[in-house]
Amino acid sequence: MDKPTIPKGTRDFGPAQMAKRQFIFDNIRKVFQKYGFQPLETPTMENLSTLTGKYGEEGDQLLFRVLDTGQFYEKLLLKVNEAEVRHKFMRGLLIVLRRTSDLIFAEFEEKDTRHSGKIQTLIEGDKFERFFIGIDIQDAERSLLKKFIIAESVITSINLAYFFIDAGIRKDNYNQVIDHHFNQFTDNVIIKGYSKILENFLVSNLQSKEVASNISEKGLRYDLTVPFARYVVMNRGEITFPFKRYQIQPVWRADRPQKGRYREFYQCDADVVGTDSLICEAEIVLMIKEVFKSLGINDFTIKINHRAILSGLAELTGSQNESSLFVAIDKLDKIGEEKVKEELRSRGFEDEGIDSVFAILNFEGSTPQKIDFLRSKFSNSEKGKKGIADFEEVLSLLQSYGVTEQHVEFDISLARGLSYYTGCIFEVKINNVAIGSVSGGGRYDNLTGVFGLPDVSGVGISFGVDRLYDAMEELSLFPKEAQATSTVMIAHFDDATLRYSLHVANQLRESGIATEVYPDVAKLKKQLDYANKKEIPFVIVIGSGEMEEGMLTLKNMEKGEQEKLILKDICLKLAVGS
Amino acid sequence: MDKPTIPKGTRDFGPAQMAKRQFIFDNIRKVFQKYGFQPLETPTMENLSTLTGKYGEEGDQLLFRVLDTGQFYEKLLLKVNEAEVRHKFMRGLLIVLRRTSDLIFAEFEEKDTRHSGKIQTLIEGDKFERFFIGIDIQDAERSLLKKFIIAESVITSINLAYFFIDAGIRKDNYNQVIDHHFNQFTDNVIIKGYSKILENFLVSNLQSKEVASNISEKGLRYDLTVPFARYVVMNRGEITFPFKRYQIQPVWRADRPQKGRYREFYQCDADVVGTDSLICEAEIVLMIKEVFKSLGINDFTIKINHRAILSGLAELTGSQNESSLFVAIDKLDKIGEEKVKEELRSRGFEDEGIDSVFAILNFEGSTPQKIDFLRSKFSNSEKGKKGIADFEEVLSLLQSYGVTEQHVEFDISLARGLSYYTGCIFEVKINNVAIGSVSGGGRYDNLTGVFGLPDVSGVGISFGVDRLYDAMEELSLFPKEAQATSTVMIAHFDDATLRYSLHVANQLRESGIATEVYPDVAKLKKQLDYANKKEIPFVIVIGSGEMEEGMLTLKNMEKGEQEKLILKDICLKLAVGS
Repeated sequence: MDKPTIPKGTRDFGPAQMAKRQFIFDNIRKVFQKYGFQPLETPTMENLSTLTGKYGEEGDQLLFRVLDTGQFYEKLLLKVNEAEVRHKFMRGLLIVLRRTSDLIFAEFEEKDTRHSGKIQTLIEGDKFERFFIGIDIQDAERSLLKKFIIAESVITSINLAYFFIDAGIRKDNYNQVIDHHFNQFTDNVIIKGYSKILENFLVSNLQSKEVASNISEKGLRYDLTVPFARYVVMNRGEITFPFKRYQIQPVWRADRPQKGRYREFYQCDADVVGTDSLICEAEIVLMIKEVFKSLGINDFTIKINHRAILSGLAELTGSQNESSLFVAIDKLDKIGEEKVKEELRSRGFEDEGIDSVFAILNFEGSTPQKIDFLRSKFSNSEKGKKGIADFEEVLSLLQSYGVTEQHVEFDISLARGLSYYTGCIFEVKINNVAIGSVSGGGRYDNLTGVFGLPDVSGVGISFGVDRLYDAMEELSLFPKEAQATSTVMIAHFDDATLRYSLHVANQLRESGIATEVYPDVAKLKKQLDYANKKEIPFVIVIGSGEMEEGMLTLKNMEKGEQEKLILKDICLKLAVGS
Repeated sequence: MDKPTIPKGTRDFGPAQMAKRQFIFDNIRKVFQKYGFQPLETPTMENLSTLTGKYGEEGDQLLFRVLDTGQFYEKLLLKVNEAEVRHKFMRGLLIVLRRTSDLIFAEFEEKDTRHSGKIQTLIEGDKFERFFIGIDIQDAERSLLKKFIIAESVITSINLAYFFIDAGIRKDNYNQVIDHHFNQFTDNVIIKGYSKILENFLVSNLQSKEVASNISEKGLRYDLTVPFARYVVMNRGEITFPFKRYQIQPVWRADRPQKGRYREFYQCDADVVGTDSLICEAEIVLMIKEVFKSLGINDFTIKINHRAILSGLAELTGSQNESSLFVAIDKLDKIGEEKVKEELRSRGFEDEGIDSVFAILNFEGSTPQKIDFLRSKFSNSEKGKKGIADFEEVLSLLQSYGVTEQHVEFDISLARGLSYYTGCIFEVKINNVAIGSVSGGGRYDNLTGVFGLPDVSGVGISFGVDRLYDAMEELSLFPKEAQATSTVMIAHFDDATLRYSLHVANQLRESGIATEVYPDVAKLKKQLDYANKKEIPFVIVIGSGEMEEGMLTLKNMEKGEQEKLILKDICLKLAVGS
């Protein structure tokens, strides 16, 4: 038997990873809640009408589509009588076959072209209905049969070409030939050949939207933002705005799997919608700082920019093609200045405009110096001025909180990929670690518009757990507590000491101490190995001596020390530690 | 625009529900951990080869299948040059068409039967390769083209039947006719007719396993037990046995949605594998008791039975058809004794056997009386004796823990649906609530066998969160703390007081208090309404007076009282409460 596997790009999370992941989730969740965000969970499957068209064409291609199992189910009744249905189908098919070949035969043998075109009409159209007259079938079956026969008759007709030859074009034996062929190819062609041809077609044509939309109307959640927007619109009557929600759930993307990129991964999002107050932006900065502090990550940079500042840059180029500029700037890190310039030229940007943009992008200086420089460039750009003003206000609000600008960097070249951002944008990088951004977000002015609720401004932040995990592993930042194992295991020697250990376990658990009893009678070494492998810090060994004395041996597995204590003292000692 | 919807049988969980659900999850998780179980998460998607055949035929029908979007993606490159590929395809098709009709024509006109069967071979086989010689295409394209052409040539061949007639079987103009028809039906038949026929076929044939398996090789997790078994087999080398894992994740079933039955729902499972110690059964009883206690549910019954006892009953009937008896007994609650008896008769059970079974099922008495009665009946049944002995041992172990038999009921008629149970089985009901069982489980001896790892005994328990939730709502058992809202909101009057409130918020949060600032300048009433709707228990109101004095007004929203305090005292007061 083949060893079982899991789908490409997916992962199991065993106990050790789970404990570390839980450490990250818990800390993020605590911070979100401390800032007034409330939890939301949306279904794994969303209607494709909700998902498609929101992530660009590439995004649509990366949606996992779920087959309409509902339709499978609706047809279970038919399936139950499969044998009967198949019998009826065969009868119907034979009749169709005879009538069709009748027509072709008449046309060919009698040179009677009046029949010309009738067969094609039969294959394409609704005319098959009449072949069913006299066959005892239900309406639902009739409709299903018709679909079968329309498709089957395509195959049937090919074979008619052979009938002409094999039958020697003699009218008196063609019925016999049909019967012969029918018996042959119902099993052969229809079942094997036919399904093979169709499967081949399916495999080659799955990207056809027409085909996919007919067999699938649900897809797996691609991110948490679109389902959130959908939720807000569906529940607009009950929601108290401004609505602050956080959401920690997996998302799925049919991306090519590679190192650090998975097809199933968690996102941790917090969004506020229903207010354009820049306090929300300031609190996003605070939350980022607090999350990283709680995770023990000290060396990180929160890059901030504003889409209106980028719009100001676009204005300077004289081009209307704002989004091409954003897309090109977004690649600066990856492909470098020269290639970005090349791309801009190829998109019709003038050299002069490109130079003025890069004069700004390459400007070095403190945040106030950058602001002054930008202001001098944006004297004629309302958008540019608005961007600067918003950004300055966010800094000023941070001051009012009594929080420093430490970790915050004004990065004019920050663009962010997603098209829906309209205001401040954020991206967080952990310094000195070869891992991309671990968090990002921004303000959007019309995310719910596509679902029929315009003018709801919002701003959000998303943390990527997988990258945080990798970075923390690299920096050895996971604390020892981030493991989900028992505090103590009870080892024993025989049936009597095993049974004695049960009430000991019960007492320990009543003191809130995570406890396990090694469940089988086994050699002490095996039991201690088990505790070591599970990294259980304490073991209580119960032998007959301990049973009699009531003094239990408590082994500290890390230090290798042991002491004899009464159970009550062990409870006290371990309860403090756990 | 249509209001967006979510798929049938799925749900959003808003903040209020989330908090209550989290309360249930947290308590279950704590108990699992206290008993030494470690967390595991498996991917949402599993290979269909992992899932199918494990849940019975009905289960297979209820699997949600995911389209192979991966394959979509693999072909994106081809898609990019769709026009070019199409052109090449057309050239290839034309050549195939000419060669094929050449053969048929030769065969027909020259009465040369040597060509007989060649065409069919071409359609079915790999012979198309040679038609591509001289056409400049890549390997990947060639393979795709081949699939297209094998399918297309089916259509093509039908039309060849017409060529004979239309061309008047004159060799000198048949090429011209082919060209004419080719131009017509490439657009007509291939694009429209063809895809229509195939879509019809798809819609009618989705339940076909052959088709489904070719377009889908992944499905959504149906339960947590099979993925766990798959995980154990995949990681058998690294796992320390006995392996105690818990898993809290959603599962999906394409069931007909109805009240209380959803297509996406969470399961909370704990299983131990790699030991047949009955201590595990005893600890399952302890865990159930502790979970219910922690949730505040006091009136519940843990029904226990043993599959070997049921086997003993089957032996008494003299029938070999053990599973039919289990299935029938499982329905006792739903359809009553008479109908169960009828079913057993129809399955070939003798009246005498049925009577002896019901004499046992209907026996009333205490647990020891039931055991004595059973023992008298099972004097000749090894299985029956083993079942009784196991059950008695579990009760004896409970005593050793110092735990009473309260809540435990020996229910000989408990059968449980799943076929893989072999030992003790459990089911938990909350009394006086019209909700089915909220938890169930049992011992299985060979769950990993199907993945190639035989003889791994295990036992597990599963809690159903949705039913627990409904029961706790009905009994009003959710504590006030089970809500995820801020402890305090800061209200203000204008820009200055809003700005002042920011450092207040910061101080409160530094004391660990979940705090939010109403982010916009708004009327006080609107701000208080917001706090009321979100059930935030405290509001700090900051006016110009408060700003000057440094004394803040703290409103207790529930009691309607308010007092003036300095920030430090507010922090102390609220930190204790939160």
